[in-house]
Amino acid sequence: MEHGWAVIMAGGVGSRFWPLSRRARPKQLLDLLGSGTMLSQTSERIGSITPLSRQLVVTGEVLGDQVRALFPDMPHDNILEEPTGRNTAAAIGWAAIHIRRRDPNAVLMVLPSDHHVVDVARYCQTCEAALSAAQEGRIITLGIPITRPETGYGYIERGDRAEGQVFDVKAFKEKPDLETALRYLSAGHYFWNAGMFFMPAQLVIDELTRFEPELMAALEALNRDNVDQSLVRSVYPGLKSISIDYAVMERTQHIGVIPGDFGWSDVGSWRSLWDFRPDGASTFSGGDVIELDGTGNVLFADEGLVATVGISDTIVIHTKDATLVCPREEAQRLREVVAALKEREKETLL
Amino acid sequence: MEHGWAVIMAGGVGSRFWPLSRRARPKQLLDLLGSGTMLSQTSERIGSITPLSRQLVVTGEVLGDQVRALFPDMPHDNILEEPTGRNTAAAIGWAAIHIRRRDPNAVLMVLPSDHHVVDVARYCQTCEAALSAAQEGRIITLGIPITRPETGYGYIERGDRAEGQVFDVKAFKEKPDLETALRYLSAGHYFWNAGMFFMPAQLVIDELTRFEPELMAALEALNRDNVDQSLVRSVYPGLKSISIDYAVMERTQHIGVIPGDFGWSDVGSWRSLWDFRPDGASTFSGGDVIELDGTGNVLFADEGLVATVGISDTIVIHTKDATLVCPREEAQRLREVVAALKEREKETLL
Repeated sequence: MEHGWAVIMAGGVGSRFWPLSRRARPKQLLDLLGSGTMLSQTSERIGSITPLSRQLVVTGEVLGDQVRALFPDMPHDNILEEPTGRNTAAAIGWAAIHIRRRDPNAVLMVLPSDHHVVDVARYCQTCEAALSAAQEGRIITLGIPITRPETGYGYIERGDRAEGQVFDVKAFKEKPDLETALRYLSAGHYFWNAGMFFMPAQLVIDELTRFEPELMAALEALNRDNVDQSLVRSVYPGLKSISIDYAVMERTQHIGVIPGDFGWSDVGSWRSLWDFRPDGASTFSGGDVIELDGTGNVLFADEGLVATVGISDTIVIHTKDATLVCPREEAQRLREVVAALKEREKETLL
Repeated sequence: MEHGWAVIMAGGVGSRFWPLSRRARPKQLLDLLGSGTMLSQTSERIGSITPLSRQLVVTGEVLGDQVRALFPDMPHDNILEEPTGRNTAAAIGWAAIHIRRRDPNAVLMVLPSDHHVVDVARYCQTCEAALSAAQEGRIITLGIPITRPETGYGYIERGDRAEGQVFDVKAFKEKPDLETALRYLSAGHYFWNAGMFFMPAQLVIDELTRFEPELMAALEALNRDNVDQSLVRSVYPGLKSISIDYAVMERTQHIGVIPGDFGWSDVGSWRSLWDFRPDGASTFSGGDVIELDGTGNVLFADEGLVATVGISDTIVIHTKDATLVCPREEAQRLREVVAALKEREKETLL
């Protein structure tokens, strides 16, 4: 589809993969599964639908050099560097006006850069269907079939009406408590919201202008050729920080959802890597690992070796300058470690 | 005592402190307790009895540069570099003929370089007593009071006769099984053999000549001024490899033992560091460590940080290129890891 443009959202920060992830190396720039960084995987996946020349990456200034190094063949003009994070509405709004200047009929495929997809062929089929549906003048989001009562994701409640693969959206739901999540799971007409949106550039600009006029008015300063980074720096800090979900998705009348059953994972923590262990293996190993008399571990060595003996159900992450050890089912407590690092002002390790 | 000469035995290899210890950085060159390397601690301890000019270090060629760097003020002639390990009889024999050329009345204090002493003042008093007793023409070994039924050490059985602090030696005992070790512990007249010997240079040469004439005949080639390292390389590989215990101590008629109650530890494994945790602490920490919700750990970071959360009774050792994790009471299983490294030919990590 010649008007399809990928907008790869690579501005994320986060420390759920500390000590491998750092401020200067967030999750999307990690190669957790030995198949390339999650960002380059995202680009490759969508590559059969849209070439590099129609892929944009929206990222943080601090990551710009790394992103350019990752995509030597991507036009530099396709890498948008945010001086500071202003959430997804600003990022998508900027990308939309940037792309519309080059293709007034562009249809955006907004894709997070830090998710994993098992069945790439099916993923591409779904994206193509969503792209076609969006081209008709709608916003299409992908709904991920629920497999567990996850309290860490937002949900999409679909309606009963369907037009082809596209269901009505009844409501977007915030992260639920466990009881609610269990209800969503058994109800059968809820999806996870994975943050993947397909929509004409003009439509999202129209909707942002309608719902968040100040944000779009401010972004209008970037609606010109040859935008200098110093201009971005003068505009960006003043932008309203709001998610595209709040700003548009929950308010627009033009939204539909297509189920996306292609084996999706947000790879949310070291614990989640355990789900990617090879068939028959009881431990996930990344990098150079020696595990003796152990089971149920997540072991990862970045430029070095992890050796365990007599250790089970434990996460061990080695990097050159830091090692993390915690029980496998307590991966979320990593945030306590990161808090302690901040408190002790270990800036080089954050 | 102007004829007292320290012979610091620093040829040891070993992997019980892997990944911190490597072939090129054995235990005596580690700073496990944050007070300097065990070798430099050994030199400092004996420093009040004998100056650096009368301290010799016998080490491996591969460690020569590191030892010289550790002792910039030690005469280079005092560092004897073995091209290959030939056990303690050869090392002590060489040191004895080397020192006798400089001081025919020298009394040697043979000291392992990788042990820890708690009460340094008492240690020095004991060494001075042993030195005085040895000067009268005896070999004096220090006997360490037994505190547990250790099966990893050799033992000394003392006789009933004492002359001052010096007891007769009834027998040297090899590493016992647990039952025997328990018997030694309850018997009350056994000591641990810590490999510390005090004796006139001439006496040990005489005894070695008597019991191991071929060894001493071969070492005679080094009995000259200005021994070139190439000469050492031509002599050393042909030397008989035998311990001083077998060669002399178990055979000589001239031996006595002085009890050494100064808080001795051979710091034999990562587990043993737990005994050195500060008063009131339940974990031993070395280097930069963050321990959240844990107890009973041995945590060590070499140039970097170890962070644990929800982990107890575990050994975690971080170095730049390798991390080890094992249960605290299974530290001896480290040898399985080292065997696996050898099998996988991870030469740079050994």
